[in-house]
Amino acid sequence: MGDYLLAVDLQLILDEGQHDAVREFFEDHHPATIAEILKDIDIERGDAILLMLDPRLRAETLSYFDRQRQVETMESLDPVEAAKILQYMPHDDRADLVNSLDEDKAEPILRRLAHAEREDILRLTQYEPGTAGAVMTTDYATLAPHLTVREAIERLRHEAPDRETIDYSYVLDHRRKLLGIVSLKQLIIERSQTRIESIMQGDFIRATVDEDQEEVARKIAQYDLLAIPVVDEHEKLLGIVTHDDAMDILREEQAEDLLAFGGVSAPSGDGDPNYWQVTIVNVARQRLIWLLPLFLSGTLTSWVVGSYDWLQKMLPELVVFVPLLIGTGGNAGSQTVGTIIRGLALGEIQFRDARWVLLRESFTGVLLGALLGILGFFYVWLWKAMSLPFAGVIAVTVLGICLWANSVGALVPLLARRLGWDPAHVSAPLISTLVDVTGLFIYYSIAILVLVRLA
Amino acid sequence: MGDYLLAVDLQLILDEGQHDAVREFFEDHHPATIAEILKDIDIERGDAILLMLDPRLRAETLSYFDRQRQVETMESLDPVEAAKILQYMPHDDRADLVNSLDEDKAEPILRRLAHAEREDILRLTQYEPGTAGAVMTTDYATLAPHLTVREAIERLRHEAPDRETIDYSYVLDHRRKLLGIVSLKQLIIERSQTRIESIMQGDFIRATVDEDQEEVARKIAQYDLLAIPVVDEHEKLLGIVTHDDAMDILREEQAEDLLAFGGVSAPSGDGDPNYWQVTIVNVARQRLIWLLPLFLSGTLTSWVVGSYDWLQKMLPELVVFVPLLIGTGGNAGSQTVGTIIRGLALGEIQFRDARWVLLRESFTGVLLGALLGILGFFYVWLWKAMSLPFAGVIAVTVLGICLWANSVGALVPLLARRLGWDPAHVSAPLISTLVDVTGLFIYYSIAILVLVRLA
Repeated sequence: MGDYLLAVDLQLILDEGQHDAVREFFEDHHPATIAEILKDIDIERGDAILLMLDPRLRAETLSYFDRQRQVETMESLDPVEAAKILQYMPHDDRADLVNSLDEDKAEPILRRLAHAEREDILRLTQYEPGTAGAVMTTDYATLAPHLTVREAIERLRHEAPDRETIDYSYVLDHRRKLLGIVSLKQLIIERSQTRIESIMQGDFIRATVDEDQEEVARKIAQYDLLAIPVVDEHEKLLGIVTHDDAMDILREEQAEDLLAFGGVSAPSGDGDPNYWQVTIVNVARQRLIWLLPLFLSGTLTSWVVGSYDWLQKMLPELVVFVPLLIGTGGNAGSQTVGTIIRGLALGEIQFRDARWVLLRESFTGVLLGALLGILGFFYVWLWKAMSLPFAGVIAVTVLGICLWANSVGALVPLLARRLGWDPAHVSAPLISTLVDVTGLFIYYSIAILVLVRLA
Repeated sequence: MGDYLLAVDLQLILDEGQHDAVREFFEDHHPATIAEILKDIDIERGDAILLMLDPRLRAETLSYFDRQRQVETMESLDPVEAAKILQYMPHDDRADLVNSLDEDKAEPILRRLAHAEREDILRLTQYEPGTAGAVMTTDYATLAPHLTVREAIERLRHEAPDRETIDYSYVLDHRRKLLGIVSLKQLIIERSQTRIESIMQGDFIRATVDEDQEEVARKIAQYDLLAIPVVDEHEKLLGIVTHDDAMDILREEQAEDLLAFGGVSAPSGDGDPNYWQVTIVNVARQRLIWLLPLFLSGTLTSWVVGSYDWLQKMLPELVVFVPLLIGTGGNAGSQTVGTIIRGLALGEIQFRDARWVLLRESFTGVLLGALLGILGFFYVWLWKAMSLPFAGVIAVTVLGICLWANSVGALVPLLARRLGWDPAHVSAPLISTLVDVTGLFIYYSIAILVLVRLA
């Protein structure tokens, strides 16, 4: 809200031509804050403000825009100015951005860049989306192994202004093979005549260029890395993936998992579709991918109920408890599947533990089912004033459905993992639908066993 | 698996007394890898190996153990050795660890520490769990504003061996008030006579000591920070929260969200309960917190069905489609609630957008309901050979239930946010149960309107 008022003020000052005031105001702020403010200003005035900032701040600010605004800005700027921005942007972000531009808009901008920069962008845009190659940056400091600490520091001092970070340097041989990593901290501590090769860390965690981005982000999280080097099959250094990109990847993947668990499969590889930017027709399409097959499988319930027609006629009060029973089964199943997906995601559960998981979950199911069953028994017997055997049928059915729902909720994500599918795509709706169909069978079978025999 | 075989080999070598071979083997490895291997070795031999490593590597390795193994190890070691490990551990990790030890086990270890270290641990253990104070570390480098760059580098060179990182230094006045931040990279670039106060960054993102840890982690993610300074109400620096801790916090919170969405509320503040370490009775208790109230609300469905008894007798075939209809409503509702929770979590949706969200989601509901309704119409009319008006009732009910489920799925998490509750705790089972009860009303009302009038 405050930001919005600020944006209105800024527009006024800008329209009055007080450019120096605007520039001064912005140069004290973090680029993320500037981007926040510019979001509330129309694109034309926003562009005017951007062009007042110094080129580095301009590029940093643009990095914090969402993709759509980045594209709009780049396409509305003069190609010369747009190229200047690309020059200062993080190498991974600018490759992604160029990928999103219309080809005929990108071409004149790329033409204004130095040959090396253009090559760098085109190389980075070629990697498969979702791999280490597609998220890595080529902006890192390198050192030769034979340098002394003094020479290395001298070199870094020279390079630093052009580098996003020099906290770690990568030690390469003449074929760009990665030999080791050395931190700026270590360079500061060591004596100035020491050679880099004798202090570099030779045992380091690495990623290969075609590795899955989620895998790479997990490594960064597990080993508490600031950045991970990305190499090809000959150990040649191609780029690095930094901790902030890893955090973005993990957050995005986990937001997707939540969506998938709700029964919506987001189109993969498409980055992070903003809630407001997807058209309603596309939203409906994404949801139908699951809702339609679930609806079709759900019709099996009408087949089950229909085929116990004679039982319904004999005991019409059976129907009263159908929604409660299958609803409870769906709920118990959702709880279990949520627990198992979390365990699989955090690596606490493996497929080889399947037997123990199943035992644990079915035992929990029995415990929950017994408690709810007793409650159901008294509800049906005392409150609903049904016969004792009828109350018994409800109690046993609750127990049976909870046991069954917990077993299905545990087995399906484990099987998905075994078959190489993403267990996070086993959704609560899928489990509910599975349990609905089978739960009805359980209910009617128990009713026949107990009530029909008694009748 | 490979690790497991390795562990067996190591045990053999160890039992043969080849200590040098073991030490040499480990000193080449990353502490996270060492911890992985030691996990598969019994605690006694594991301790023996730990004690062979140099104290810093020992402490780093312990940091990668899970909490339970850390506690077991600390309690089985001689207090002198345990104290030595604490001395080299990250300051935040060791405070958490001391918090987990039995008081009478912790006391002799703390007694063996230097006064300043003991004070530091005791201070850190006092902050409320879940706040910035409880996750921050006190291991950071500080500089005075009047130092020159040369003096600052000299000072850092001196301090560096004892610090986890010196990539950023915090500039404090004589009352420890935080004046600015300066990076090692900047120190390397600047001329040696420049004063720190003239190059430090005075506008920086900070966290207050009682701020929620998730909030702090979000700031680190949003601003791509390596670490965030934590200050008290007088701007005095108390500690820093680092990017790797932020990543752990976000991953943990998001895993909890997944669980909550499945309908399980994890006990808060209890860290990260491993799947295998929670007793089955506690698992059942956690699930009952939701399953029991949902079961009780679910009994409302039997009340609804029961009170339309006369309708059931008149049109017994109505029951055949009950599970399909309410199941579809539950599925559509789960999809919507998953989408809205994700949007709220990523900040794409605010409460003030409620009207637009509701419009969007109900429109999507109409679209989905119309498609599935048409499908349902033909299924009931052609396949099930029911009357045209009956097929019409099913079609209109599908439409109505989808519209209703999408509205409920959008409204409930928005209301939760408005009331200050965590919207992630609006679960798929909660929405399903809500839609079950109301869906039955919709079904029966439409049936009365159409079929009873025709009859």
